Amino acid sequence: MSLIVKTQQATFEEELRLQSGAVLAPITLAYETYGTLNADRSNAILIAHALSGDAHVAGRHQPSDKKPGWWDAAVGPGRAFDTDRYFVLCSNIIGGCKGSTGPSSINPQTGKPWGMTFPMVTVADMVEAQRRLLDHLGIERLLCVAGGSLGGMQALQWAVSHPARVRSAMVLASTARVSAQSIALNEVARQAIYADPHWNRGDYYGEKRPNAGLAVARMIGHITYLSEASMRQKFGRRLQAREHYGYEFATEFQVESYLKHQGLTFTERFDANSFLYITKAIDYFDLADGLPGLADAFRNVTARFLVLSYSSDWLYPPEQSRELVRALLSQGIDATYVDIQSHYGHDAFLLEVDRLAGLSRDFLAAVQRAG
Amino acid sequence: MSLIVKTQQATFEEELRLQSGAVLAPITLAYETYGTLNADRSNAILIAHALSGDAHVAGRHQPSDKKPGWWDAAVGPGRAFDTDRYFVLCSNIIGGCKGSTGPSSINPQTGKPWGMTFPMVTVADMVEAQRRLLDHLGIERLLCVAGGSLGGMQALQWAVSHPARVRSAMVLASTARVSAQSIALNEVARQAIYADPHWNRGDYYGEKRPNAGLAVARMIGHITYLSEASMRQKFGRRLQAREHYGYEFATEFQVESYLKHQGLTFTERFDANSFLYITKAIDYFDLADGLPGLADAFRNVTARFLVLSYSSDWLYPPEQSRELVRALLSQGIDATYVDIQSHYGHDAFLLEVDRLAGLSRDFLAAVQRAG
Repeated sequence: MSLIVKTQQATFEEELRLQSGAVLAPITLAYETYGTLNADRSNAILIAHALSGDAHVAGRHQPSDKKPGWWDAAVGPGRAFDTDRYFVLCSNIIGGCKGSTGPSSINPQTGKPWGMTFPMVTVADMVEAQRRLLDHLGIERLLCVAGGSLGGMQALQWAVSHPARVRSAMVLASTARVSAQSIALNEVARQAIYADPHWNRGDYYGEKRPNAGLAVARMIGHITYLSEASMRQKFGRRLQAREHYGYEFATEFQVESYLKHQGLTFTERFDANSFLYITKAIDYFDLADGLPGLADAFRNVTARFLVLSYSSDWLYPPEQSRELVRALLSQGIDATYVDIQSHYGHDAFLLEVDRLAGLSRDFLAAVQRAG
Repeated sequence: MSLIVKTQQATFEEELRLQSGAVLAPITLAYETYGTLNADRSNAILIAHALSGDAHVAGRHQPSDKKPGWWDAAVGPGRAFDTDRYFVLCSNIIGGCKGSTGPSSINPQTGKPWGMTFPMVTVADMVEAQRRLLDHLGIERLLCVAGGSLGGMQALQWAVSHPARVRSAMVLASTARVSAQSIALNEVARQAIYADPHWNRGDYYGEKRPNAGLAVARMIGHITYLSEASMRQKFGRRLQAREHYGYEFATEFQVESYLKHQGLTFTERFDANSFLYITKAIDYFDLADGLPGLADAFRNVTARFLVLSYSSDWLYPPEQSRELVRALLSQGIDATYVDIQSHYGHDAFLLEVDRLAGLSRDFLAAVQRAG
């Protein structure tokens, strides 16, 4: 049986001054909540989503929905984020295309979609927008902010930007400073979108969309979400619906079929301009920017940390989590680190929920005990 | 001082029956030679090139050429392939676009470029074409066939297809069976080309070329040629020609600038259809295809092997070389394996020439001694 949830929206008129110096107003955030906020408002957990996620983290909107939210296996009664005990909140990031203000939203100044005139947003800007939502919901202090990948970056940023409002952070399959290789992969994905003539410099709303470019971008992403080992196990060199090589350019290998499917379905649910903005936000993410070292970023941080990496994750490899943990520990911050052995690659943070459940339960209980 | 060399061409009228069953005739091969064939024709080394290589492996065509051949550091007097001692031969593969028959060649039947009507070619087909060149040059037996990446696949295929004609094989940064991850990367690169409207199903000769798609394809390739560590060292998060983030989609990071440059220059020297055909040939490469196991592929092989992998190569990782070596050894084949510690990733096979020189010298001397 699945939770039935509803996406809500809140609009904030107050100007949001972005890291770039630009100003955005009003902003709308789509969000979902699960469980009940307790009397002293001390059991709220904010879950931050990754590149292609949204506010719909768990449950179904209708009983007939084919799929539940993107992290349903981790959020619900008795799960890693136990909605019988905690009030769980998830909001779509600004720059996104799932109900929050982003490049596909209408620019109130022009009455037309922003497209590429939307201002650049960063992870810190995403966090500032979420802060307003917390104010709106009357949550002064989060028991925990948790997320994987870009969600982990938001969790880190929360702890750094608002030390007094974050009791703990769970950072999964993420990094404190995005590597050259990750920037390279994001840039190639963006170039695939730019190369699509239907992209038309971002001005395609109401017209043919840059689906071919966005599909290629997503295919690149999916290669980075799996590990070499998981691809070998899942597909190997098996052919799709044939016994022998066809010596033709049509899809022959199962792995090709998988990628094409992933690319195609993504174009049905995601906006190409949002993909551009969000990948840029990822590329800009570097907590050490302008500081002598990464440790300096955590000077005022009081949150406890649970940092999880996954052994076969090559997008944000374990070494980057270890770098983060060393920086946290050097500042006397209470940080627990586990490198989870998994073949699933970067996707492991979504899939290895049993390991997560045990670790999360113990971690959250310890945070609560610490008061 | 650089060798001055000339690319030659040889045309063979005899039909080449391809693995697909199709027939190709005539075929032209571009090739270069270095050093002198000795009296008993026992000192010939065939170097096989990788995806974007050509016959021009070393030296210069004109003293004024800005760059020498693609493996100049390894081929020349006193180098890994010592042209004072050996007769070195390199030919452009069929399917290529550097003087050998490929999709940009004229189909004699129609008088127009083949484009996508060119038949699919495999690594075994490339080797069959090279065999004709050896016959033409009067070389019955190769002292060695050597290559990295796709070149290593050709070296393996030579030893398997023509055991009596190959005394030794050097297989660098390669694999005996291309992995699902490699197929995935190649397929995404192809999809980037298909997505370019100027590709026009391969029919673009004399028109605008699919440069945007080909550039994206090449950028994907370059990410796989470097390692995460070498990207960190070479570029890190350094910005290109600016002090601070510009919060714009223009190229900001050095790694983006590098990739764009690589993508752009590639379109000036390579044919998109050749890229499609050659990546398919790579994807089809699996010496174990149709056999109980990989070892069975080497049942009749008599060549000695030197197999080199590079510790940070994630395109054809060391484990794939070890799988190859285990299969060779299980057939009683004399195989030496070295995993060279290097940060350079897949590119290491081109760059780590000092390590190669020592190993190659000893290996070739041992092959000669064995008679």
